[in-house]
Amino acid sequence: MSRFETPASLDEIRAVMRELPGPDTVAAEAAAAREATLTKPAGALGRLEEVTAWLAAWQGRHPPQLERPRVCVFAGNHGVAARGVSAYPAEVTAQMVANFIEGGAAINQLCKLADADLRVYEMALDQPTADFTEAPAMDEDSCARAAAYGMMAVEPGIDLLCLGEMGIANTTSAAALVTALFGGSAADWVGPGTGVSGEALARKTAVVAAGVERHRDAATDAFDMLRRLGGQELAAICGAVIAARLARTPVLLDGFACTAAASVLYAFDPRALDHCLVSHVSAEPGHRRLLEILGQRPLFDLGMRLGEASGAALAIPILKAAVACHTGMATFAEAGVSGAVE
Amino acid sequence: MSRFETPASLDEIRAVMRELPGPDTVAAEAAAAREATLTKPAGALGRLEEVTAWLAAWQGRHPPQLERPRVCVFAGNHGVAARGVSAYPAEVTAQMVANFIEGGAAINQLCKLADADLRVYEMALDQPTADFTEAPAMDEDSCARAAAYGMMAVEPGIDLLCLGEMGIANTTSAAALVTALFGGSAADWVGPGTGVSGEALARKTAVVAAGVERHRDAATDAFDMLRRLGGQELAAICGAVIAARLARTPVLLDGFACTAAASVLYAFDPRALDHCLVSHVSAEPGHRRLLEILGQRPLFDLGMRLGEASGAALAIPILKAAVACHTGMATFAEAGVSGAVE
Repeated sequence: MSRFETPASLDEIRAVMRELPGPDTVAAEAAAAREATLTKPAGALGRLEEVTAWLAAWQGRHPPQLERPRVCVFAGNHGVAARGVSAYPAEVTAQMVANFIEGGAAINQLCKLADADLRVYEMALDQPTADFTEAPAMDEDSCARAAAYGMMAVEPGIDLLCLGEMGIANTTSAAALVTALFGGSAADWVGPGTGVSGEALARKTAVVAAGVERHRDAATDAFDMLRRLGGQELAAICGAVIAARLARTPVLLDGFACTAAASVLYAFDPRALDHCLVSHVSAEPGHRRLLEILGQRPLFDLGMRLGEASGAALAIPILKAAVACHTGMATFAEAGVSGAVE
Repeated sequence: MSRFETPASLDEIRAVMRELPGPDTVAAEAAAAREATLTKPAGALGRLEEVTAWLAAWQGRHPPQLERPRVCVFAGNHGVAARGVSAYPAEVTAQMVANFIEGGAAINQLCKLADADLRVYEMALDQPTADFTEAPAMDEDSCARAAAYGMMAVEPGIDLLCLGEMGIANTTSAAALVTALFGGSAADWVGPGTGVSGEALARKTAVVAAGVERHRDAATDAFDMLRRLGGQELAAICGAVIAARLARTPVLLDGFACTAAASVLYAFDPRALDHCLVSHVSAEPGHRRLLEILGQRPLFDLGMRLGEASGAALAIPILKAAVACHTGMATFAEAGVSGAVE
């Protein structure tokens, strides 16, 4: 299958996963070599230097560029919302999509500031997934179609892909997914989401536990778990992460639901997220736990828990700063600055 | 003394310190009130919401603005550099100032990206302070003059003041200052700075211990300690922080040397830094210890240790994002988004 052909089934996606390209180590080494010549003590820009090398490795070029970041927000509805697991009614998903389109959401302001191209993908909001406590959330075809839809968000020429989601009840789906994939109890992974507590939180935990109980043993692999417990927007994020790898586009993941979606790929192959950085650690408690499992060090922790790619978009200026320092700084020789004393 | 008259002595600065204005609580409350109406779950933007309220409180207006950030880098030379406490020779201070002016340093790239006005203040680089192991670093007049010089960096119309420094050996001076002000041993506060280790690090620690030993008991207060163990650029930072408070300009502090300078004001009056946020925690180990004493939670930790206001400048986009979300987002009513279910 060529890299621009869209897989038609989960099996075709599994096949793509077995041929993921690795990093461009030559580009990463070129970044490290230039870094050592710039007018600063070695390593003084800390993680900005790591980010530059990572961008070079996964863009496959030196110097890396960050002129065309794209932010994709996938929106989906969840049958499990009917079980009262969210602080908001399910119609808020569509209302917030309208808000994205009108420019009134946080992500609009953040994209404008970062000069990023915002794309909002509305995924059949009038056709929510099935309630996973009763049946698999999606059949094979819908799940593959949702992933393929996510793949189409990746186009040539994008320097960075920021992923996010909107979907009332999707932290319930995300918690079920990671409980099933990585173990632990539902209570370990369930958090307030948009803001549930008390009885509603207990209900959310029970719903997650019931879903995991129903599907964990029946699932054949991580993609089958995605189909059973996930959602359309979560499957789309998986597709977008895979397509970005094929297109040599580094990825910034956002918060809990987004990272949980991508973790399906990690569960299938731990190298599958090497081209992804997680922008921030969410206040949703399961996120920190998940980041530890994935071996991901987030760039910042500002107590955000909004989703809609807001953390990822806020990280764009940090990545731009890394590239700007790397490409724009003078070398010791150019600036006539003395080096370190032996 | 009017707020725009420049103090001529340390005593006049002490007098100003006794009349620092407090926050505008009305503006902060207006920020909180609007925050609650915006299309996101309550508190979902985490510290961005806190930052907005803090900007409103210290700018004294709602909504806060962030159109005109200024970045000031003060550069000074230190007599103690002759004792081999830095990985770089003292002439690097002047060479780096030239690099700032030519646009080749990290701070130039970061200011360009953040659309910030960069000002570099070169402080008599050919007249370093005295070696504090032998004598007070500065006499009263020089210290007051340096602080007054820093005050002049604050002009009407600036929305945010980011402070930073350049000065070979100034982490030695900073470590001595905070050891004397806050206790602990020299080894608790001394770190690699530009990159010393082994014998050089032991020498740096011994120099700090000797300086503290010589001046701690003789000093009459925090400003006198600044005069004895500090440097011209550190005194300038103190002055700039005070002037910003008077001008209702919130301040972003940078790394270890910058925060150590500002901590002189905290030691004099713990409320004196309420209009300051520390942008990041530096890899220089004393910084984290100092932030705990000051009760400051940095915005991010990216392992940076460059100084020259680089961390503060990198934080500007985060503050701009906070303001952009606060002012640009639609309210639930405007967007027709349903609120939380009771």
